[in-house]
Amino acid sequence: MAIIRPGSTDELAQVMRACHAAGQSVIPVGGNTGLVEGATASERDVLVSLERMNSIEELDETGCTMTVEAGVPLHTVQERAADAGLMFPVDFGARGSAQIGGAISTNAGGNAVIRYGMMREQVLGLEAVLADGTVVSSMNRLLKNNAGYDLKQLFIGTEGTLGIITRAVLRLRPALRSRNTALVAIEDYGNVPQLLNTLGSELGGTLSAFEVLWKDFYDTVVVERSKHQAPVAGDHPWYVLVEARGGDQGADDARFQSALEDALEAGLIVDAAIASSAKQREAIWAIRDDIDGLAEILDPVMAFDVSLPIADTAEYAARVNDRLRERWPDTFRCTTFGHLGDNNLHFLLSVGSEDHDEQTEVMKIIYEELRPYRGSISAEHGIGLEKRPFLDVSRDPAEVALMRTLKRALDPRGILNPGRVF
Amino acid sequence: MAIIRPGSTDELAQVMRACHAAGQSVIPVGGNTGLVEGATASERDVLVSLERMNSIEELDETGCTMTVEAGVPLHTVQERAADAGLMFPVDFGARGSAQIGGAISTNAGGNAVIRYGMMREQVLGLEAVLADGTVVSSMNRLLKNNAGYDLKQLFIGTEGTLGIITRAVLRLRPALRSRNTALVAIEDYGNVPQLLNTLGSELGGTLSAFEVLWKDFYDTVVVERSKHQAPVAGDHPWYVLVEARGGDQGADDARFQSALEDALEAGLIVDAAIASSAKQREAIWAIRDDIDGLAEILDPVMAFDVSLPIADTAEYAARVNDRLRERWPDTFRCTTFGHLGDNNLHFLLSVGSEDHDEQTEVMKIIYEELRPYRGSISAEHGIGLEKRPFLDVSRDPAEVALMRTLKRALDPRGILNPGRVF
Repeated sequence: MAIIRPGSTDELAQVMRACHAAGQSVIPVGGNTGLVEGATASERDVLVSLERMNSIEELDETGCTMTVEAGVPLHTVQERAADAGLMFPVDFGARGSAQIGGAISTNAGGNAVIRYGMMREQVLGLEAVLADGTVVSSMNRLLKNNAGYDLKQLFIGTEGTLGIITRAVLRLRPALRSRNTALVAIEDYGNVPQLLNTLGSELGGTLSAFEVLWKDFYDTVVVERSKHQAPVAGDHPWYVLVEARGGDQGADDARFQSALEDALEAGLIVDAAIASSAKQREAIWAIRDDIDGLAEILDPVMAFDVSLPIADTAEYAARVNDRLRERWPDTFRCTTFGHLGDNNLHFLLSVGSEDHDEQTEVMKIIYEELRPYRGSISAEHGIGLEKRPFLDVSRDPAEVALMRTLKRALDPRGILNPGRVF
Repeated sequence: MAIIRPGSTDELAQVMRACHAAGQSVIPVGGNTGLVEGATASERDVLVSLERMNSIEELDETGCTMTVEAGVPLHTVQERAADAGLMFPVDFGARGSAQIGGAISTNAGGNAVIRYGMMREQVLGLEAVLADGTVVSSMNRLLKNNAGYDLKQLFIGTEGTLGIITRAVLRLRPALRSRNTALVAIEDYGNVPQLLNTLGSELGGTLSAFEVLWKDFYDTVVVERSKHQAPVAGDHPWYVLVEARGGDQGADDARFQSALEDALEAGLIVDAAIASSAKQREAIWAIRDDIDGLAEILDPVMAFDVSLPIADTAEYAARVNDRLRERWPDTFRCTTFGHLGDNNLHFLLSVGSEDHDEQTEVMKIIYEELRPYRGSISAEHGIGLEKRPFLDVSRDPAEVALMRTLKRALDPRGILNPGRVF
């Protein structure tokens, strides 16, 4: 019906007071990079975009914090932190468009969660406007603050259903001075979690990425597409992109190499290609990140984001593949990969159909198969409208009732992002 | 009035249903190691102790999680993790008595927050009993799970006012293989945050403790008491206990030493004693941890726990000292120290009086002086009853109103730990 672009928290508060009085639904929108229909609007809704609130208000190089408005793109935060010799560790493909407010509202994940946690762990303070226009400013800058309830948690990962985030204080980290990257090959899935835990210990906590690629992913991206060179030869069921970041490139090179040699000797891995230049590192990451290339091959593509215990992941992926192949024997095609260090598995797949009922059937298979593993239907993308029908796979009635209690308490008229989550 | 010791979540649920029906106040108690009157009871209250619910239900060595009942002592968790070749990183002096449920309810901090975060960051899943006896079980085991609201946040750090924690899934970390510890001396406070940030970068993220001791602390513990040997000679205004933990003792020794040499050359520090044995390391930590010794000397002692930006901490401490010395010129004595890497400052002090009004006057000075720095009246100890009168120093009316909204929604009869926090 309308799009409103407030220029300040006060302007948004006025908008919310008016919408609350009128019972008008409000859909907050950030960079529109979400994948679960978290910010889609109907002709009866008012969209609120934070794009004009895009200032970096303060960068405290001593205290390692950055205070930003919600509309600042993630990439801008990363760049400004780097300019100050610091680092903002959350990173994912949509960094150029995704806005901080949206990334916080969805508790975004990405490539470095194994070491630094999700967006939730990077937020020290928040300001939000509630459904009735009340401004709650909890702009804490301190790592430790137990003075009463930690109110920011109400707005992190709740997909704009309890309030609209307007400003945030972000935690920055020391810039790291070394980076080591390898692609390794694994024959037996049981070695995947063992490699993760061994490297976690042997690399002294500097392990920063552990991205697992199934053969179906590797073959499609590397063998089928001519764009990438194969970093390791042969034909293996699993590949892992391993990256460590530390304080001293020379010493860390030696440590990284000896950790992988130990893994080879112990039989955990059967081959390894260590990047010996930035160019080689980028080439390895380009394989992992070639999602656009995959999407072309798999058109019409469906993307999935689930999580479950790492020990069970190969079995789960095989069961899902079996069921989908049985149902769509001629058209089913799947690629399997994920941030397995954080329990996060992705599928990019096609059943050759864009039919709504068939796609719902795919979702049902993928989500229902999570039940025996107590998995989650959303690792990092949220629920939005898309996954709402499947929420009961991961959350029981008492949990959903408590979510509703919170919603009623903070948004009694149900105007904020209605229909999302539950 | 009574103490109830449930043996299971179901038993506690029955107790809460009865108390809810009767409007009976309930005070949850863990190991009774808190310092802010969070679990004190009057003759009208029912105490609920979780001490009988003390099982470790599962230790998943592959997934690196431990599932425990709330009454398990922290030290038991640490030991069981270590037995499995893993680590539970939260650590503080009361580890032998403090229970996991209490540590979560108060979002406990301690010595390794700079690297691993507070208790909040170690909790993957929770089970809690609400005021009306409803059991909410959110026993997530996954690092990434964005399937709806993250309900555990309601019970972490809310001091038992929104529910009683009965079980938890804890995140374990890889055990580290190296440990390097030093005590360094600093002449100019401006070098304290600079050393923190330089080591954060140069040690590649392996910095695990950064404990600052003011001269008043060091002189009292090391010079006045004959129990400790001085690790560094001379007379300096600040000392910092620095510890790094990594993956390879030999290589990490060299890195640690060269990082401190660089700091010496850059003039950030003026002296350094690196522990070259476990005995020397323990001797350095014993100085930092000699709180009992301090408490004897400072009897009647008062303990404080605040946080503020590291750049402002020396100025704040000096102002507080000036005001207290002016007010109690003959009897005032203070020792100053803290986890400054997490913004956390402690005072152990005495004004020579146990008089309630005088002690309130001390608190007022210490907390009110935080205002210009937007500091927190509680870094890691919580609010309890003790700090409630000062909550407005750190939280504004809109924030307290939102806390009350949550309290009303989850505990409409106000029976859970009444009077705590706000």
